[in-house]
Amino acid sequence: MPRINKDRVLSDLRKLASFGAYKTGVHRPTLSVEDVAAREWFVHRLREAGLDAEIDGVANILGKSRVNGKKALSGSHLESQNYAGWLDGALGCVYALEAARAISEDPDTADLGVDVVVFCDEEGHFGSFIGSRSFVGLLDDKEIDAAVNRVTGETMRQGLERAGWSDRPRHLIDPSRYDSFFEAHIEQGDTLDSSGGKIGVVTAIVAIWQYRITVIGEQNHAGTTSMARRRDAGREMIRLIASIDQRFQKVGGERSVWTTGRMEFDPGEKSIIPGKAQALFQFRDADPVVLERMEAALHDEIAHAKRNGRCEISIERLGASTPAKMDERLQRALDAAAEKSAPGAHQRMPSGAGHDAQYLAPKLPSAMMFVPSINGVSHHWSENTSDEDIVLGAQVFADAIVKALRS
Amino acid sequence: MPRINKDRVLSDLRKLASFGAYKTGVHRPTLSVEDVAAREWFVHRLREAGLDAEIDGVANILGKSRVNGKKALSGSHLESQNYAGWLDGALGCVYALEAARAISEDPDTADLGVDVVVFCDEEGHFGSFIGSRSFVGLLDDKEIDAAVNRVTGETMRQGLERAGWSDRPRHLIDPSRYDSFFEAHIEQGDTLDSSGGKIGVVTAIVAIWQYRITVIGEQNHAGTTSMARRRDAGREMIRLIASIDQRFQKVGGERSVWTTGRMEFDPGEKSIIPGKAQALFQFRDADPVVLERMEAALHDEIAHAKRNGRCEISIERLGASTPAKMDERLQRALDAAAEKSAPGAHQRMPSGAGHDAQYLAPKLPSAMMFVPSINGVSHHWSENTSDEDIVLGAQVFADAIVKALRS
Repeated sequence: MPRINKDRVLSDLRKLASFGAYKTGVHRPTLSVEDVAAREWFVHRLREAGLDAEIDGVANILGKSRVNGKKALSGSHLESQNYAGWLDGALGCVYALEAARAISEDPDTADLGVDVVVFCDEEGHFGSFIGSRSFVGLLDDKEIDAAVNRVTGETMRQGLERAGWSDRPRHLIDPSRYDSFFEAHIEQGDTLDSSGGKIGVVTAIVAIWQYRITVIGEQNHAGTTSMARRRDAGREMIRLIASIDQRFQKVGGERSVWTTGRMEFDPGEKSIIPGKAQALFQFRDADPVVLERMEAALHDEIAHAKRNGRCEISIERLGASTPAKMDERLQRALDAAAEKSAPGAHQRMPSGAGHDAQYLAPKLPSAMMFVPSINGVSHHWSENTSDEDIVLGAQVFADAIVKALRS
Repeated sequence: MPRINKDRVLSDLRKLASFGAYKTGVHRPTLSVEDVAAREWFVHRLREAGLDAEIDGVANILGKSRVNGKKALSGSHLESQNYAGWLDGALGCVYALEAARAISEDPDTADLGVDVVVFCDEEGHFGSFIGSRSFVGLLDDKEIDAAVNRVTGETMRQGLERAGWSDRPRHLIDPSRYDSFFEAHIEQGDTLDSSGGKIGVVTAIVAIWQYRITVIGEQNHAGTTSMARRRDAGREMIRLIASIDQRFQKVGGERSVWTTGRMEFDPGEKSIIPGKAQALFQFRDADPVVLERMEAALHDEIAHAKRNGRCEISIERLGASTPAKMDERLQRALDAAAEKSAPGAHQRMPSGAGHDAQYLAPKLPSAMMFVPSINGVSHHWSENTSDEDIVLGAQVFADAIVKALRS
């Protein structure tokens, strides 16, 4: 079996962390000067590893193996959230690169091919999974034309032009070329860290069903309008969300989560009864049956509030993804590789966060592997994983790819 | 008894509405060019009515009668809320002026004196009841020094300088000069309008107890943080406000009102568990016993939430005024005057909104009279009262002042 080079893994990760270094993390938004430089450097590294690597017209990178036969495809994303962690995305790219290198360097596995892919904008500076959706054929040019950086206002087309990639064709997946897709990532939660686990084998990436709830009442004077007469949009919203929360405790699954991320009262003045209230509400689960049950409960609570309250209530579904099941054969390959290097310290678990793998899963048997994130920190510059866990994860990842390709 | 001059009342009100006219209302913030011009014009009108009138160093106007004996003091405010109604404040100033004129014109009542007072900034562009608090001796110079217009950023001192009033002394109440204080106002609610009532006799001005509630949890990923582990500040706030609302339905009085005017989740992103939530919460009642009971229930609910929840909760009292009881003798004078001109179409009622009279009440026997506001509209440019109701109210108001001074 291949032996990964631990110094190479750590130095590649540290080199990537120098592009947009911020405190102990990085600030490397998609197509920023630092992100463009990181991609150019990474392509260089892929070519040094003997892969035919190119950046495409949407800033995705594909590094192709010259080995014959079905290959593994592996990778993640290189850009970061704003002022966020050094491993979120980068770890999966370097693990893929190291797996390709270690597998080709070992005479016993040099017949196995690993293609490395780096997706653009998984973190959503310009849109939603632009890179992986482009790669699987779910993104048309119009969406790229319309994409604008949420913070800087620069269009994606301007960013691609600046990088010198705007005229390039886009890489498109060739499913016949591949046996499987593997993505590694930090956990972003504390399931592993709090239990001493070293490796998480992902069973499914949960679906996110996202809604906007709007309550319209009547803006009025908070002193002169009696409780009986007022149509208080804020009060109605609070009652509704409180009742949805109680109901979800009954209908949700064991791993379900639900969140009211935003709540706004209009006009938001201390002595004015809110005439309007808006909330962003979402829930996540890996099981379509549970998702449907939660949505039915949501609509039922809204119908109840409309019947019993004095405000207009509307709900808009902003998005409803499908849970992405990870392939059982690949999960077994990960289980076995983890058991070899970290006996008893691995577990199967769903991913509560979205990942590029969810767009690959409908096209290829797909797998995801997690390493522990210290204290479960995510999307913050203090995010970290111990060097020991990073190195262990790289070995398990390469071993699992070999097992999959040999199986 | 005096006969008010209906054309004079309506033309004075329409003239005032020309200062800062906006649609069918006015935009006349305190010390704006339009407000300064309105005050200059009003002083001129007071002098035409035979009153010794001056604008003071904080833009209050006092027009003094030359008649001997105890006088009535009467008035309201001249500035408006932003883009708001033409009668809110102006009506009480013109009623006071008309009462002074009509009473002095009638030989039977010419021995009775009415001083007219116009308070500055009841609407709170620079602070809270700056004019009436100055007049009763509850405002020191430091507060004026620090007062800044919330919208324009101009200091109150700069505004007074621009108006040419900055070096003037401030009028201070001489309680020995007065029998009583009378303020008229539009109702700002629909109690009169919806019941066909023409005159409201105010029993008390409610107190407002205002709070800021802060919940601190832990900002985290909305997908990777289990329900058991998360410390969701938004969820805790919703539960808390919902439980306070339920409790207040039991402990509140018949006329109590409570309002959550503002609600904010931080950072307010759809996929981030709020780490902090803040709400502005207030309640109002005219009875100190009810107010104390509501506050005790509020603290009790917060203590309960702290014991049972997983977040830190704090509450800050931003203000707690005292209910201002109106004088019974003066209420009877208003009842009798209303019964004469609008038999059966008058009622006693508390004022849910604050008024300058609440600062006069501790100094003088005080009274407030309401006229109907069409559909209860308040603090909006569409606020209005029929000419017929305006004229009727002016007559009742003058008659009541006479009755009070004769009683």
